[in-house]
Amino acid sequence: MIETPYLLFLGDAPDQLAAKVAQGIKDWRPEYAVGQLRMEGCNADMKLPDMTLLDAKAAGAKTLVIGVANRGGIISPAWKKVLITALEEGFDIASGLHNLLRDEADLVAVAEACGRQLHDVRVPSVQYPIATGVKRTGKRCLAVGTDCSVGKMYTALAMDKVMKARGEKSTFAATGQTGILVTGKGVPLDAVIADFMAGAVEYLTPDNDADHWDMIEGQGSLFHVSYSGVTMALIHGGQPDALILCHEPTRTHMRGLPDYDLPTLQQLYDTALPLARWANPACEVVGISINTQHLSDADALAYLAQVEAEMGLPAVDPFRQGADRLVDALLGTQTVLAAQ
Amino acid sequence: MIETPYLLFLGDAPDQLAAKVAQGIKDWRPEYAVGQLRMEGCNADMKLPDMTLLDAKAAGAKTLVIGVANRGGIISPAWKKVLITALEEGFDIASGLHNLLRDEADLVAVAEACGRQLHDVRVPSVQYPIATGVKRTGKRCLAVGTDCSVGKMYTALAMDKVMKARGEKSTFAATGQTGILVTGKGVPLDAVIADFMAGAVEYLTPDNDADHWDMIEGQGSLFHVSYSGVTMALIHGGQPDALILCHEPTRTHMRGLPDYDLPTLQQLYDTALPLARWANPACEVVGISINTQHLSDADALAYLAQVEAEMGLPAVDPFRQGADRLVDALLGTQTVLAAQ
Repeated sequence: MIETPYLLFLGDAPDQLAAKVAQGIKDWRPEYAVGQLRMEGCNADMKLPDMTLLDAKAAGAKTLVIGVANRGGIISPAWKKVLITALEEGFDIASGLHNLLRDEADLVAVAEACGRQLHDVRVPSVQYPIATGVKRTGKRCLAVGTDCSVGKMYTALAMDKVMKARGEKSTFAATGQTGILVTGKGVPLDAVIADFMAGAVEYLTPDNDADHWDMIEGQGSLFHVSYSGVTMALIHGGQPDALILCHEPTRTHMRGLPDYDLPTLQQLYDTALPLARWANPACEVVGISINTQHLSDADALAYLAQVEAEMGLPAVDPFRQGADRLVDALLGTQTVLAAQ
Repeated sequence: MIETPYLLFLGDAPDQLAAKVAQGIKDWRPEYAVGQLRMEGCNADMKLPDMTLLDAKAAGAKTLVIGVANRGGIISPAWKKVLITALEEGFDIASGLHNLLRDEADLVAVAEACGRQLHDVRVPSVQYPIATGVKRTGKRCLAVGTDCSVGKMYTALAMDKVMKARGEKSTFAATGQTGILVTGKGVPLDAVIADFMAGAVEYLTPDNDADHWDMIEGQGSLFHVSYSGVTMALIHGGQPDALILCHEPTRTHMRGLPDYDLPTLQQLYDTALPLARWANPACEVVGISINTQHLSDADALAYLAQVEAEMGLPAVDPFRQGADRLVDALLGTQTVLAAQ
């Protein structure tokens, strides 16, 4: 659990894209972002107040979040001075960099001396249990994709936001580094030991109120041969009541696998649903989330209409259109189930 | 890679079952087992020559293999003296215990001083790559089960033995602790970090001669919600040409999961084969291996005949009947494919 609110460290980010972790926090948890700290040469801007460490401390910030990925994921000497001062000023530090904070002897020494925490969100901080498969109370929705990086995290965050706006009980359950930094907690599932993957997902989405939904961030794809085991653990550990199918229609092959075509949405439906029903016989596919960023407005709308007609399910781009129709479908399922 | 041959350490095993790792080595790689070392109170016997460390050294043994699991998987003080002397006499030590050799400061110190290796086969010794999914040369057969512990390792070992006896090119590819100790190498797949599971299986079963078969030890089950992700990684990382379905017909529920029924063999067929064909479109289910240990001879034969009729595939118990018919089916597939 990372203490909030945050001061977002943008470092010397060469461009806006390099600061996508900070952007994610700004977009999805603006209440966590009291300000930004930019060094000389920084070309990213979250349109947040520029703050010194002392300003941010006065504004209540508890954790300095490294919101930028630099080349090679390393912690540069230029950053080091800021990070050490932050610890001395009483901030914890959170990072999703490959170069771990805990591997920097000076940061570790200063953190210990100052009684501060270093959060490396790429590394599990918990000894997760073996999954039990026991049915849990509350509801769970899982985003599954035809491929990696098609918008599963975005979809779950967008649905969670709509749920909260409507006063519904909802928790975004982060399973990746960015999601964990956005929300301050979660499970870095790709870094968990194989035997404990499904147990980690159970741990992440425990018993809850009957009308509470966990919106589980998906990982990988059942059709991505490098990571399909991680996806499988999400489907069985998450025991979802609802699946959202996620797709990016302009991909010509699976991400990083030039020899592999993408599956169709129907193949994803036919594969994921029976596997999910093994852990939760009540599971339904409730909607489809399409990432249309590479299509024109007109092409996007035409494609969405076509998918909706073919699949008989609401098909939306939550970035262009919002996630309301996906949430309608989710709560509609709940109503139908409650009425049975 | 563990150096062979072995001296099998049976310690103070209370009964034969406690020494099942030693039994596995004796059964499947008798040429690796030069003798056994039994302490006072040992009630297990592999029918191997009883040897002192010096006897075994003279007979060429290179590694002392802890072939026994005691209560709690710990390294007892009574054992410690033998293990330290073994290191001093020039043996490496290999263990699949939960209590790691490397966590015992005295063993580590003596091993370093003597230039010997401590092999903890529960812990990966390699930084495995991310899977690429690139098609590899050679053939691969994977045992998949309706449940955990239904005989997948036994089946792969039995088929490998028949293959070798017939002069066919075959390698048993170990993916679990016992299999690794039996063969001296392999991947402890359940202990691999999630992102690298499929890559570890690719690493284990690399390019090979066109007529060489890797007999891959299965793990878990697609229907066991605790471990299905591991199985999925085997199916996609292994890109098998052939699947063997494994089943134990007297189970009343999934192992450790009282709320879960076992799937049928047909369900396993229908689920595993399409997933396998995503990585290898030529994959076929070639046979069925039934663990009939809890059935009488008559019941076993009747059950096998029934399964064979229902599934249209050879159904055998390799323990009772040998694995010849499974190998016939495997090589028949190869012949058919070669003729196409």
